[in-house]
Formats: sequence, C-alpha cells, structure tokens
Amino acid sequence: MTSSSDDDRAKQASRRKFLKTGGAAVAASASLGAGLAAPGVAQGATHRDKPFDPYSVVEPFYAPHQAGIVTPQQSHTYVAAFDLATNSRDDVIKLLRQWTQTAARLTQGQTAGPLEGSGDNQSAPDAGDVLGIGPAGLTITFGFGPGLFMAADKDRYGLAHRRPAALVDLPRFNGDQLVAEKTGGDLFIQACANDAQVAFHAVRELSRAAYGTVHMRWGQAGFVSGPRGQTPRNLMGFKDGTNNPPISDAAAMNQFVWAQAADAPWMEGGTYTVVRRIRITVEHWDQMERGFQEQVFGREKYSGAPIGKTREFDAVDLAAEDKDGNPLIPENSHVRLSNRDSNDGAQILRRSYSYNDGTNFYIERWPPWRQETEYDAGLIFIAHQADPRKGFIPINDRLAKFDMMNQFTTHVGSAIFACPPGAKPGSFIGAGLFDA
Amino acid sequence: MTSSSDDDRAKQASRRKFLKTGGAAVAASASLGAGLAAPGVAQGATHRDKPFDPYSVVEPFYAPHQAGIVTPQQSHTYVAAFDLATNSRDDVIKLLRQWTQTAARLTQGQTAGPLEGSGDNQSAPDAGDVLGIGPAGLTITFGFGPGLFMAADKDRYGLAHRRPAALVDLPRFNGDQLVAEKTGGDLFIQACANDAQVAFHAVRELSRAAYGTVHMRWGQAGFVSGPRGQTPRNLMGFKDGTNNPPISDAAAMNQFVWAQAADAPWMEGGTYTVVRRIRITVEHWDQMERGFQEQVFGREKYSGAPIGKTREFDAVDLAAEDKDGNPLIPENSHVRLSNRDSNDGAQILRRSYSYNDGTNFYIERWPPWRQETEYDAGLIFIAHQADPRKGFIPINDRLAKFDMMNQFTTHVGSAIFACPPGAKPGSFIGAGLFDA
Repeated sequence: MTSSSDDDRAKQASRRKFLKTGGAAVAASASLGAGLAAPGVAQGATHRDKPFDPYSVVEPFYAPHQAGIVTPQQSHTYVAAFDLATNSRDDVIKLLRQWTQTAARLTQGQTAGPLEGSGDNQSAPDAGDVLGIGPAGLTITFGFGPGLFMAADKDRYGLAHRRPAALVDLPRFNGDQLVAEKTGGDLFIQACANDAQVAFHAVRELSRAAYGTVHMRWGQAGFVSGPRGQTPRNLMGFKDGTNNPPISDAAAMNQFVWAQAADAPWMEGGTYTVVRRIRITVEHWDQMERGFQEQVFGREKYSGAPIGKTREFDAVDLAAEDKDGNPLIPENSHVRLSNRDSNDGAQILRRSYSYNDGTNFYIERWPPWRQETEYDAGLIFIAHQADPRKGFIPINDRLAKFDMMNQFTTHVGSAIFACPPGAKPGSFIGAGLFDA
Repeated sequence: MTSSSDDDRAKQASRRKFLKTGGAAVAASASLGAGLAAPGVAQGATHRDKPFDPYSVVEPFYAPHQAGIVTPQQSHTYVAAFDLATNSRDDVIKLLRQWTQTAARLTQGQTAGPLEGSGDNQSAPDAGDVLGIGPAGLTITFGFGPGLFMAADKDRYGLAHRRPAALVDLPRFNGDQLVAEKTGGDLFIQACANDAQVAFHAVRELSRAAYGTVHMRWGQAGFVSGPRGQTPRNLMGFKDGTNNPPISDAAAMNQFVWAQAADAPWMEGGTYTVVRRIRITVEHWDQMERGFQEQVFGREKYSGAPIGKTREFDAVDLAAEDKDGNPLIPENSHVRLSNRDSNDGAQILRRSYSYNDGTNFYIERWPPWRQETEYDAGLIFIAHQADPRKGFIPINDRLAKFDMMNQFTTHVGSAIFACPPGAKPGSFIGAGLFDA
C-alpha cells in the first residue's frame, strides 16, 4: 500500500547525499546486476551516521509522542494483543502503570526488574535471554482496542463515553478471511528493536507482568531485511515504503499521523494504528512473469521506479500514457489504487514488517482435493494515521475491491488500536483516558 | 544439550584475547548488571576482525566439506525438507545438479538465474526480494533422508544398498510428540545467512527450481540474537553452545563431526545431521525461580558458569560436592546428562537456532478445559556428528528419560539426514552416491 509525496525535499536531499557517497555500495553489489542496487532512502535511514551499531541505539521513552511510530524503523518487531480478564478499572490502571514503568526500563537497556537482591525463592525478575545484547533501539508502543471501551455490550471500566469516534470497528473488507485468534484485542503492544530477541523479550516480560489481568490473544514476530539506507523489499520482491510521508516532515506527520483532540482530547498527539496479517502466496507469485508482477504493482521490480520512470523516488505520474493512449500505470495496479491522488489526498504512515512462520500443511476439502505444504509468510501490515476513517478504511476498501495484487494475498488477521500520546515521567501511558 | 571440551586451547587463547580487548563491551552493557555481560567466545566469533559487516561476508561453496557445518554460525537460518515426487533416478540427479549450480550462484551473492535477458514472457528468474542486500554469509547445506534410499518399502532409485548404516531411522524417544508435517523428509536444505530474508530466499529459489520433482514437507525459520563475540542465549535465557567442540579444532571435527568412509565411502567428509523442533513453554519457564532454573541446567544463568564455578568457560566438574556431600551439579541437570563424561566421551556439534512462530490458540479437551494462547517458540535444535548412533541417539535417550528440562520442552518435529561432502566444480552434491 503506497501513497505519494513526490516533492519531498528531505528525500531529494538524501538522494543527493547518496549520489555523493553511495558509490561503494553500488560496487559491492554489482554482482547482483548492474544498476539494481542503487539504494534509495528508506524511512529511518537518514538520521544516523555510519558506522551504525544496531545494538547500542537507545530511544527515549518519556516523550510527547510514543516511540515506535515515527521512530526510524528498526529491523525487527514483535506485536501482540491482549484481552482484559478483569472488571476492575483500578486493575487496568495498575496494569498500565506497571507496563509504563517496565517499558521505560526495558527501552533503556535495563532488565524488566532489578536483578540485584532477587532471591532464589521468587520467579526470575527477568527471563535473562537478552542479557548482554544491549538496548538495540527498543521501542514499546501501547494501544487500546475497542474492547477497552465496550466488550460484549458491557462498559466494564466506565470508559464507553470516552471512546474516540475515530476508533471505529473496522468494516469487513472484500476478500477478508480473518481468523479470530489472529484478530482484535483490548490492548496492544508493538515492540520494535534491531534484534529479534530483544523485541520478543519486551512482550514476554510485559505479558508476564500482566499475569492474571490479561490473556494473550495473539502475538507475531516480524522483520525487515538488508542494510540500513535502502528501502526494504517485501517478500514479493518489491521495495515497500518508497512513497511514505517522510517521518522527518513534522507538518506531514501532524497532518496524517498524529491524532487531533477532536472528541477525545486524551488522544491528542497519539495515533490510530491498524494491523493486518496478510498472507502472501509466495509460491504462486514466484511463478509469475516479472512484467506481470510490475503491472500488478505499477512499479519496476528491480529499480523500484514507477512504470515509465527510471528511479525509485521519481514521481508517480498517474496520467502518463503509452503510445496507444493506455495508462502506463495500470488502472488496477497497487500503486494507482493506493496513491493519494486516488484517495482524496489521504495518506497513512506504513511501518510494516515481513513475517515468516514456517509452513502449514493444507488440505482442500473440495476438488481437486489438493494436499500441500505452503509457506506461512507474508506481511505484518502496520499503518499509523490521524483518523482511519480518512486513511486505512477508504484506501483499503478500494484496494480490497480492485487491486490485482489480491490474487496473491489474503488478509487473515486484523486489529485497530488507539495509541495514546507518550507518558510523562511519573505518570503512565493513557493516563488522560482515566482522568475524571 | 551440551558436551564438554574443557581443555581447549583455542578457547583459552581467545579468552585471553577477550580479556585484553573486551573492556569496552563490558562497559557498554554495564546497565544490565555488573558482571553479567562478560562475553565468552561463541562459535564463529574468533575468525573475523572488527568491524564486522554481516552483509559482505562470502563463504566458499565448492570445498571438500559442505559449508554450514563448521562455518562460524550465521545469525539466521531457514531449514526445509522435501519429499521426492518422482520415480526416476535421472530426475533426482538432474535436480541435484540444478540445486548445486543454483546454490553456488546464491552463496556468491548472485541471483538464482541471470536477470539479464530474461523476458517478460517467462517467470521471474529470481524473486528479487534480496536484491541489494549482499551475500550475507549465505551457506546452503544439502542432506539426504532415509526416503531417498527406501520409501514405503520401495527402492525407487536403486540406492537402497548404498544407504549408510549411520543413517538410521531415529527411535521414538521418551516424551516425543512428533507432528508428521514437521517431521522427516527425503531431502534437506539448511540455508544460513546473516539476514533472515537471504536465508529464506535461498530455500525459496531452490524449492521453485524443484517444482514438480519434489513437494515441500516442512520449512522453518530460526535465529540467534546479539552481537557476534558472545555465546548466544536461547529463549530460556541460558547461554547455548559453551561446551561445543571448537570448530577451529580440526582433530575434534574429524573425530566427532566428519563421517568416515565406513560402509558408505560416498559419505566420507560429510556429516549426519539431526534436526529437532523443540517447543519451549516459555510462559511456564518464566514463572520459575532463577535458582531452580540453574539446577535444571546445571549452570548459572547470568554468567553461564557451571554451578560452583565463576566463568562461562570454566571446566564442568561433575564430581564437585557441596558441604553435605551432594553433587553441586544435580544428577538430573541438563549439563550433567549431556556431558561427554556421562556419554562415553561422545560429542556432537550443536548449531541450533531459536524459532518464534507467533502464537497458537490451544484448547485442552479434558478438565480443566483450559483455553489459551501460547507462544509457538523454542529451539530448532541442529546437531552434526560423525555417527548419530554414538552421538545424538544415546545422548538424547538419556536426556529424554531423565532431564529436568523436559518439564518445559516438547519435541514436536524430528528429522535425520546424511549430508554428503562438498561438491567439486563441475560436479554436484552427492555425486558419489550415484556413481556406478
């Protein structure tokens, strides 16, 4: 899913910088085919000087916005959703306080609890599986699902009247094949880090701290590959994220990502996050011709350029036609359908990860009664936006109906969360929601 | 699973080197607790000078031994097994030739097929999802399962008489809960790389090249975390691999890892590989006291030292007793049971990875009829050895019966393969098996 921001000066400046400094990278990957490796500027690639040590990065926790939203994208994530198993508002507040304190520790490279003085007669204060790795850029982002406000027609915590209108129940989209145990959730944690185990460890410790108050609903590991400084390729082999609104552009972030006060002042400076588990039929896709794949995306596979252009960050020209007057970027291509010019200017900030959960054995229970093992791999689509009613929902409604890519993708999980603004020291994430 | 090699000079030399150079690393991780981060020498950590660029590493493909066995362990793997769907010996040879050629390309940082000249009217010569990443230390290791020699009592390829006695059918071990679709396989591919997508890409391309000749049986992604130069911790939080025979010790490799000619001269210089998918009940484990966890392992959690010692690489002393005359390292601890002194001197080369496949929703169909979501996470145990009848089988037989760790682990997948020696240029992996 892409949206355009063609005249972005930050990207151009970064591109110029690359042209000056990127010669070595091009030479190093020349064996992959001339001209294929010209790295563009990935989200998150522009803020750090080399050499980059992925383990020593520390992201601040207490800040006006929660980290993990416009933070330069780390290489790994573990996202998880939980259902609340209490009817007590105080339990929820107590949990959020504890989560806030633990997250503040973990993101600064500390263990979940102090190791010193922990006796043998109590459970370990930390699983210990990331000791010695370093903070690894860990961010922990919390969100609230619809069930915090109303679950089974019950207002368990007296919060129903504070539910933002923007926290809608997502509609059913064309083609959705959602699995209940990969969908929804009252509470959300997104842990991102430059190390798979550091990301998982955060969710593991927070989940353990919540023992008895929540049940885990689903959890999912994800990754993006390759060196920083390139737009990562998804498992379909195409660069993913080229046309994101740039995180360095505060005005764009204010317009498209950060929630306004609106009907829920406690959400001001937060964001609304949609998570979709999108399985990709990798085996099927790999049988397709490259030219067809490019028609599906509306971009060239190797360079990432829009069809008809030559460079990844060249502007998408939806009006361009071939000599016969047909659109160069096909009507049902992903780039056209998701482009902001096709969506009343709407943009969302995608911060997606690939996932790769091994294989499933699959039986078709109707002719031809096929039995086969297939990859359980695809995209953990994560999008942040100021209002999903103007962002993900209309964009995905169009994609779900018309996108040629739908032949190769299945949405099997879905969730929406209100991610409140950052916590103040001494307070906790979402405190504004519970104010009298 | 561990085995001792206490007097190893290479490790000692490396430790001395660490003591001279490692101060910075200790300081950097001081916030994790004093003395916790003293990095030992992980397998694979001793051969490269810093700065280490994980993407530029190139491992040779054509060599006396296959790569990926005594190669310094890369950070990621994708392992997969396939069943042959042909009755033609020539088809098998043709497949192995093609796999060899493709693997030689991929490991050197090239695409599966040439991109140049590939027209739009043919399927893409390469999925393209790792273009620009670099070779990333990719190794591809092939193995042959029992089904290549005999399947359903049929000798499909006239190879039954060449099956090595060491390629046994693994016995059922105490506690095994093997799942058919995660177990076995006629052919095996282990792809390891310093990037998750590069490892997966290799299996994906090789699988595609085999379309029609094989069916995928199972596939599995794995990882080890943290910077090079430390023994990685598994998901139980303990260092894993401390007591491996050192890959730098050629004599030890010849003794314990590389197959002799024996009854199958075509396997000389190869190895026998056991793969086990071991689920860890992380949630349950995390509730345990640290002291108890250390009794289970027989090691201290933070330092990795054997109980009663202070440093990770201190020798395991099975005879040490406390003041009451009880063994310091418990009778049913993992370290004692797997130690070579408990196994007639047997050693195996473990080269395992953690896995993290999200969560499963789980229903107990008997009281208390529990329903819950649990992590599908654990260890892809991979062990290479000269003869599994002297290695994995007796060691695991003892562990399966007595290891206290069994309360927290379940073996759900299992496979054994004969990995032949490396290919000569112009020839193919396993050529010796097909010689008249």
